[in-house]
Amino acid sequence: MKRELTAIEIVTIGEELLSGATLDSNAATIAQALEPLGLRVVRRTTVGDEAGGIADAVASALARTGAVITTGGLGPTDDDITKAAVAGVLGRPLEFREEVWARLKERWARRGRIPETNRRQAEVPAGAEVFPNPRGTAPGLAVEDERLGLCVLLPGPPAEVESLVQDAIVAFLAQRVSGDVKRPYRCQLRTTGVAESAIAERVGGRLDDLLLDVAYLPEVDGVDIRLTGWARDEVEVTERLHEAVRRLRETLGLHIYTEGPADLAQVVGDLLRQRGLTVTVAESCTAGLIARRLTEFAGSSDYFWGGMIVYDDRAKVELLGVAEETLRRYGAVSEETAREMAEGACRRSGSAAAIAVSGIAGPAGGTEEKPVGTVWLAVRLNDETVAKRRYYPGTRDMVRARAAQGGLDLLRRTLLQAGL
Amino acid sequence: MKRELTAIEIVTIGEELLSGATLDSNAATIAQALEPLGLRVVRRTTVGDEAGGIADAVASALARTGAVITTGGLGPTDDDITKAAVAGVLGRPLEFREEVWARLKERWARRGRIPETNRRQAEVPAGAEVFPNPRGTAPGLAVEDERLGLCVLLPGPPAEVESLVQDAIVAFLAQRVSGDVKRPYRCQLRTTGVAESAIAERVGGRLDDLLLDVAYLPEVDGVDIRLTGWARDEVEVTERLHEAVRRLRETLGLHIYTEGPADLAQVVGDLLRQRGLTVTVAESCTAGLIARRLTEFAGSSDYFWGGMIVYDDRAKVELLGVAEETLRRYGAVSEETAREMAEGACRRSGSAAAIAVSGIAGPAGGTEEKPVGTVWLAVRLNDETVAKRRYYPGTRDMVRARAAQGGLDLLRRTLLQAGL
Repeated sequence: MKRELTAIEIVTIGEELLSGATLDSNAATIAQALEPLGLRVVRRTTVGDEAGGIADAVASALARTGAVITTGGLGPTDDDITKAAVAGVLGRPLEFREEVWARLKERWARRGRIPETNRRQAEVPAGAEVFPNPRGTAPGLAVEDERLGLCVLLPGPPAEVESLVQDAIVAFLAQRVSGDVKRPYRCQLRTTGVAESAIAERVGGRLDDLLLDVAYLPEVDGVDIRLTGWARDEVEVTERLHEAVRRLRETLGLHIYTEGPADLAQVVGDLLRQRGLTVTVAESCTAGLIARRLTEFAGSSDYFWGGMIVYDDRAKVELLGVAEETLRRYGAVSEETAREMAEGACRRSGSAAAIAVSGIAGPAGGTEEKPVGTVWLAVRLNDETVAKRRYYPGTRDMVRARAAQGGLDLLRRTLLQAGL
Repeated sequence: MKRELTAIEIVTIGEELLSGATLDSNAATIAQALEPLGLRVVRRTTVGDEAGGIADAVASALARTGAVITTGGLGPTDDDITKAAVAGVLGRPLEFREEVWARLKERWARRGRIPETNRRQAEVPAGAEVFPNPRGTAPGLAVEDERLGLCVLLPGPPAEVESLVQDAIVAFLAQRVSGDVKRPYRCQLRTTGVAESAIAERVGGRLDDLLLDVAYLPEVDGVDIRLTGWARDEVEVTERLHEAVRRLRETLGLHIYTEGPADLAQVVGDLLRQRGLTVTVAESCTAGLIARRLTEFAGSSDYFWGGMIVYDDRAKVELLGVAEETLRRYGAVSEETAREMAEGACRRSGSAAAIAVSGIAGPAGGTEEKPVGTVWLAVRLNDETVAKRRYYPGTRDMVRARAAQGGLDLLRRTLLQAGL
């Protein structure tokens, strides 16, 4: 009789995790993958490559929670002792598995004969279930003891953990979770151009009756709103989530740029593609950041023509045709310069749309009138130019990231308001 | 009589760490800060905001190791229960500290009167040493029990942990570590343009007699070599580290671009600045990545003029003057196009140096002759152009990152070989 699970612990193994050389992303990967099952991670322990510590951590986890997932220590070297340590805790021998050995030999075949010393990698705790690892040599393993509980053993490399968890472990554990447990159902809206406190104020108590968890997640360049409903079944929450999204759209309007995980540059790219337009960028302080973001996705040549990085004022004149008189009279960080940059970008490229950014990213270069963080954005669309002055607080990196986001967002709003 | 420390455990507290919403960077920050003291982190435990779990994790850590650092759970809300849990483990009451309350009131003064409910934040376990927190409201605390051991309590926000650890906790713990313990002394060399296996082969056993740990750390765009010597005193290892660096420089020559943590773009920027030169970039598949990297540092306007992002072939013609005939005959990803891009960049800008990149980042667009990952790099310096064909494996992101690094590195090597 296998017990039903509601909680699990994670034990991550490796000196590099303890020393801080590597961040423990495996624990986060696993926790996030198990959450939709309603299976909560209640403790995580990290120990080094030392048998006593591993055995102690696994035994304590089983005693507390009855279920544990380990990562690391399944390789072919002497450091890799997780299997033996766990077998010891469960009082089982290691046994040699022909099918694991066969797969190892096959993997090695491409680069030569497998060393006999690697036979250890084909040993598993007696009775273990084996999950083939498409990205590496060490398979995932699951061993269950009626009295002590369930141990799942995974390798250490994050790419291998990701694929094993997604392809096999989630399905394996899903059978073990009671149908009665509440699971989280989620929905995410992304906003930019409006502060967390302003969002919270506008939203106020408008969602209270829907009984959802509402989280505001501030990032450098925007605030994500995450809605979570806990239920035994999706149908119990779907309508409430939809209603919450509807109310948030009504309240926040254009501040919301997407529902889901998409980057703002992707949203802007899709809007351009739908309209058959291309965009050209004219970047000063952001120096290529907007271009890089617009080209992160395959197929970006559909909507991205190119751009001019006009860091030096001479570049503004020579690549974009900004008037020397404008630079002299108003300065590089001014409405007039930003407008001429956007106009020059369209003129030189023939694109219908352009984004121009000129600002002071710091740490030096600020004045009382134009402090560090002052940025002028201009967007040109079909022969009309809009320009906005912004003040972005933060370090050089943050000012640049916020200015790039601001430029993309100004184009998005302009496209939508133009009713194109 | 305070005991001498050689090992310590970390207990990190917070539901967001268990759920995987936040990576546990605090544990890594602390471990890396303590390593130079010779103080090893031997276990890390993560628990949620629940008194029983916190008390159990701290008590077990003290029983095993006699020293523990916690992060999280020191805020003013009902979730924040670390102080009470630790006070319970040590059998001490919480006591109100006037000086902590005074600092809290002062911090609040700027935004209004502090709520009386925040008085809890001025309570500390009896006898605790208090470390003021310049970046937040919750101070760091240290409490020692002769029999049970030492507890250091830190807040959760990473910026606060960083400053408290660097400003106070390292010095506090340093007094407690035996002078007899071996500490790691480190040195790092950064390489690019040569594979990890090729480095390892060339280095072979050449450093064996120096008794250092040699680690090859492969990143997407290069391999760092980290040398570590363990000793009671720096003088015991300094000479061996210097000798190892000398031998590595002899063996690897120009593949090494810096000793220390600097980014390649910074190294290239410094070389340009020393020579009084500016560079202009002509980027196709990297679309602004090189420009962004060259401008990440304050003062980059000394050596960076600007650039052209020539994603569309029309942009190559119109912004750089690449001949239509060249594009037709050889294609956009070709030696001829890359050379004309670099030449155009110098001609349009007047810069003495240019980097040009044209390649196929994928996932689509590859052919048998020019598969995805094929990149042509060209560098122009003082009226001479060099061009190199490269093949970079990996995803779109990886190809772009490697191509940007390759372009910067080709300029670095060209500057150094020109004997400028």
